[in-house]
Amino acid sequence: MTSQDKLNYRITKGLHVCVGLDSDINKIPKFLLNENDPVYEFNKRIFESTYDVACAYKINLAFYERDGKKGIESLQKTLEIFPDDVLIIGDAKRGDIGNTSQMYAEALFDHLKFDASTLHPYMGFDSVEPFLNYKNKLNFILALTSNPGNSDFEKLKLEDGTYLYKRIITKVHEWNKFSNCGIVFGATNSDELKENINLINNLPVLLPGVGAQGGSFEDIVSVFQSANQNNFIINISRALIFADNSTKFDVECRKKLIAYNNLI
Amino acid sequence: MTSQDKLNYRITKGLHVCVGLDSDINKIPKFLLNENDPVYEFNKRIFESTYDVACAYKINLAFYERDGKKGIESLQKTLEIFPDDVLIIGDAKRGDIGNTSQMYAEALFDHLKFDASTLHPYMGFDSVEPFLNYKNKLNFILALTSNPGNSDFEKLKLEDGTYLYKRIITKVHEWNKFSNCGIVFGATNSDELKENINLINNLPVLLPGVGAQGGSFEDIVSVFQSANQNNFIINISRALIFADNSTKFDVECRKKLIAYNNLI
Repeated sequence: MTSQDKLNYRITKGLHVCVGLDSDINKIPKFLLNENDPVYEFNKRIFESTYDVACAYKINLAFYERDGKKGIESLQKTLEIFPDDVLIIGDAKRGDIGNTSQMYAEALFDHLKFDASTLHPYMGFDSVEPFLNYKNKLNFILALTSNPGNSDFEKLKLEDGTYLYKRIITKVHEWNKFSNCGIVFGATNSDELKENINLINNLPVLLPGVGAQGGSFEDIVSVFQSANQNNFIINISRALIFADNSTKFDVECRKKLIAYNNLI
Repeated sequence: MTSQDKLNYRITKGLHVCVGLDSDINKIPKFLLNENDPVYEFNKRIFESTYDVACAYKINLAFYERDGKKGIESLQKTLEIFPDDVLIIGDAKRGDIGNTSQMYAEALFDHLKFDASTLHPYMGFDSVEPFLNYKNKLNFILALTSNPGNSDFEKLKLEDGTYLYKRIITKVHEWNKFSNCGIVFGATNSDELKENINLINNLPVLLPGVGAQGGSFEDIVSVFQSANQNNFIINISRALIFADNSTKFDVECRKKLIAYNNLI
């Protein structure tokens, strides 16, 4: 299955919530710390409890890189949990000169076997091209992010009156010749989402920022529904996976996820 | 020694060339492939041969991440080679929301013990802040990069007539309260460097793009010398480390490096 197929299959079933496995060892339930690989056990139980009701999973590499070789081992073991029919996003926010981005693409797609990436657009086309050459993968390029710093550069007005993040969305359409591009659009920006829903058009949109960061799930869903677009993935990390710290954390995570699903 | 001290010490000795350890296993001399860890052996021999004549070393993480756990092992072993008096730049081009950038900063500075980072500015202040909170480290923020894609966004003209990359340089000055910020400025842009040398002022500048990418070493040196500024580090990767593929590759690398030093 291509990554596009994996995503479409879940979206067709009405699933739009991505489980973000920001599995910080300092925040997972304490009883798991007796396990040989606590982070892997945590991820495995979250996955098994949510597999049929999640749209996708997103793994932010920072949480694994922090522990060096041991973290990479947890990551690789975690990646083996997932069956081939669900989209796994490698949230690595990479971007470098072409020669180097090629190495990053090989790391994410060939070595770790992620289905999708997240990418920094700043360095321009040749910095994302090696990723886009993987025709059956998906690449979510940062447009407008969920954090306060998005006003520093992303929202700058350009000479022609448009905004930098809009220019990026326009470019992503140009770069999308293999239909394997999407964008990242922070859920904390529901007004801007509404304003740009036509510009975004058919690009898959990954929306982080609901929950701990304050974005409104309902507002986001409403924008897409009003526009009759269903190409959206709302990522929720901390508010789902750390919903409970008892031995039933996985059951509670599932309940929370279903509650979100019911809002759609 | 702080990272600033390490850099200043070498610059005071007139050393400005950074050795880029983009140690692609497909490009290192074939005879090394019999070694247990060919990339580590390659790095060790390059280091031992250049230590007294290099300004700094830059390791691009992509070349190690591509090989997963094995690559991280080579990276960690390589990092143990370096004594404490030379600047080692972790060229990772990271940048994420604050909570996540904190993890990346811990990965680079606490776990891997790099002296310096490279960072994507796109997501704004809170995405780089966790790195800047390490007062004794250095952080090179991407301003104008060396690749063709720099015209896609970096060189866009803003509403007020300035350019995005210039706005970033201005912001980096504001962010520099611990004197631990620098910028990345591609050596392929010597005209723009000349034009902005006063704006850059006392920020340390890391300049990749000489050699394989076509930037002129002499032009760059001349801009800094004309402005009486010595805060520059010219990175050379492929043109130095792959100068020769015989058993004397390390000797040839040293010769090339000294030839560059003599141009200053």
